[in-house]
Amino acid sequence: MTATLIAGIAELVTNDELLDGADQSERLGRLSDAAVVVQDGVIAWVGPVARAPEADERRDLGGRAVVPGFVDSHSHLVFAGDRSAEFAARMTGVRYDGGGIVNSVNATRAATDDELRNLVGSRVAEMRAQGTTTVEIKSGYGFTVEDEVRSLRIACEFTTETTFLGAHVVPPEFLGRRSDYIELIIGEMLSACAPHARWIDVFCEPHSAHAFTEDEARVVLAAGRDAGLGLRVHGNQLGNGPGVRLAVELGAASVDHCTFLSESDIEALAGASGTTVATLLPAVEFSTRSPYPNARHLLDAGVSIALATDCNPGTSYSSSIPFAIALAVREMGLTPGEALRAATVGSAKALQRNDIGVIRTGNRADMTVLAAPSYLHLSYRPGVPIASTLELVAEH
Amino acid sequence: MTATLIAGIAELVTNDELLDGADQSERLGRLSDAAVVVQDGVIAWVGPVARAPEADERRDLGGRAVVPGFVDSHSHLVFAGDRSAEFAARMTGVRYDGGGIVNSVNATRAATDDELRNLVGSRVAEMRAQGTTTVEIKSGYGFTVEDEVRSLRIACEFTTETTFLGAHVVPPEFLGRRSDYIELIIGEMLSACAPHARWIDVFCEPHSAHAFTEDEARVVLAAGRDAGLGLRVHGNQLGNGPGVRLAVELGAASVDHCTFLSESDIEALAGASGTTVATLLPAVEFSTRSPYPNARHLLDAGVSIALATDCNPGTSYSSSIPFAIALAVREMGLTPGEALRAATVGSAKALQRNDIGVIRTGNRADMTVLAAPSYLHLSYRPGVPIASTLELVAEH
Repeated sequence: MTATLIAGIAELVTNDELLDGADQSERLGRLSDAAVVVQDGVIAWVGPVARAPEADERRDLGGRAVVPGFVDSHSHLVFAGDRSAEFAARMTGVRYDGGGIVNSVNATRAATDDELRNLVGSRVAEMRAQGTTTVEIKSGYGFTVEDEVRSLRIACEFTTETTFLGAHVVPPEFLGRRSDYIELIIGEMLSACAPHARWIDVFCEPHSAHAFTEDEARVVLAAGRDAGLGLRVHGNQLGNGPGVRLAVELGAASVDHCTFLSESDIEALAGASGTTVATLLPAVEFSTRSPYPNARHLLDAGVSIALATDCNPGTSYSSSIPFAIALAVREMGLTPGEALRAATVGSAKALQRNDIGVIRTGNRADMTVLAAPSYLHLSYRPGVPIASTLELVAEH
Repeated sequence: MTATLIAGIAELVTNDELLDGADQSERLGRLSDAAVVVQDGVIAWVGPVARAPEADERRDLGGRAVVPGFVDSHSHLVFAGDRSAEFAARMTGVRYDGGGIVNSVNATRAATDDELRNLVGSRVAEMRAQGTTTVEIKSGYGFTVEDEVRSLRIACEFTTETTFLGAHVVPPEFLGRRSDYIELIIGEMLSACAPHARWIDVFCEPHSAHAFTEDEARVVLAAGRDAGLGLRVHGNQLGNGPGVRLAVELGAASVDHCTFLSESDIEALAGASGTTVATLLPAVEFSTRSPYPNARHLLDAGVSIALATDCNPGTSYSSSIPFAIALAVREMGLTPGEALRAATVGSAKALQRNDIGVIRTGNRADMTVLAAPSYLHLSYRPGVPIASTLELVAEH
């Protein structure tokens, strides 16, 4: 096994709160003039370059900053079709209610396997080019057993973090017989999808006629848990609602959006901070012209938070974690360091992963290089593509 | 002279309001399945690919959208040093007043010519990689005759649109003797800088103790005009003030920022719409957490608007026109088409240029290719680097 020394790191953010000699302001575990040794895809050593061990190869990054690879814990990459016109209409005042999802469903069903595979592959490549090293991918534009399974099969080609989201919305063909669709989800569809998924998710949202009620969501999640899947919830996106409460009640790994939260929701999340993460998706608020949640208040209350893109064709066709970080700082009251932690170790926690999100010995060698001297530039340089995964960075 | 046919253009936005057979909604002059013939850097033909003439070479873009190259009519690229910590402090509540400019001045003065040239070159390259084909570059981090001239000389290596901004702020060494600095600007400094500049600019802002009053600004601009320079004004950034009024009075090509406008300012701009453009810089409002101006109101009132980045180390270290477009749609009430026009033909007008901003026969062949089927994706995909200048796009 070849050991490679990565040197020329002006600033290394490790997120390792126990790292010797590191600057621990904002719990970033920061080293200047650092080096990392990578062996077989795993981190073998982290420290100041002056104390680096011998290695078989040496790579020099020429004085750039390195941060943990971004973990995008919420995306919907398996879709075909184009909904940019729906976006343009929304920007002139048309309200989002989830109804446009059916357009993606029609196009996705019509696509061949190879077309869908190429679309997902190009989106994952786009994410990697922007510094994302782990991505969660949901189904949810199929709504038939065959189409949901197909979406998950293709997602599995790109990530181990796959999520069955048959309960994205109630499809139009089940209009007036919602309970039949629930039966399908928890019966035949779940049985066929569970082997291809790690997680189950549901869009629990009383403010959309297309989404699921608390009771429906509870049934879906319970069935998923019985089938061995971990739990995730889309909750509190369009208004106050039961999503957060339900996620905490069932011990879900994450409740995502959290745009509208009551004080009791925040108390519940704070009490569940060891279990249920609040995943914030500010690119959705950006692209739906919604108010932003107050992430500052959540952190101060002791809530565990994550940051992800929600990359999807309806409400956030952004694949950029740096954009989410910049929004979290501008609009949600986080410091640049808190936003970076939320998009790395925070979203790793939302996926219940200990092997990513922190650069430390034994963890996966998932690292992101910035064309900048400091992690601060992720929010200081909004819109500028300064981040890329280590593998994609040319030799200096 | 080799003629090259550019084909495979799924959607071509020309901004040409007279183009035969084009879709003129939002005055975008749009063609589907279009082609462009380029000869010697100039556009020789525009139309549907089915009617394209013979050419010596053919290039296929594989079904992407093409728009006029972005014109970034306001930037401050000639600087050294890092002010990311000032940005981070501001995000925790420290207010921007222009005082941090002196940090850039010290670092810029300390840099060698080659260091400064490399910094400017890498920033221009970063802009081109994001679709910008014309950039205006200001001096204004020198504040000595020698350092201002040096900044402009280096800027001239990268653009013809250079702006003398000795009147960026009053440097600390002139504390208590502002009039001496004005004398220097309009005397020796202007004489030395004018040969290297097309424009003169002044930061007219009563809300900053570091910036210039209306009377001071008038003196500087009048001297610049007498020296043969065109006029630009930084105005109305931090609060209501005289900047817009002064720019209109003197027939400046552009007044930039326009964050805080009175109804009489808007009336003045509307009356001067053939002469003075209101250049909006939403990345500044983003990075200073300022309210945004209402661009919708300006357009409806008949004001000519432009959109630019203001790329600079203090208030907007973004080099991304797509980011400015996305902000203009999300935050300033523009449609995706209006925002694109503002950043192309609008900013060309702010530079009094007729040869760019519109893809039509005889104009410069400055074009930007999107990794997307439609210009709508510029705002539909915020933060994602989908735009690049034609020269940088790999053969399909």
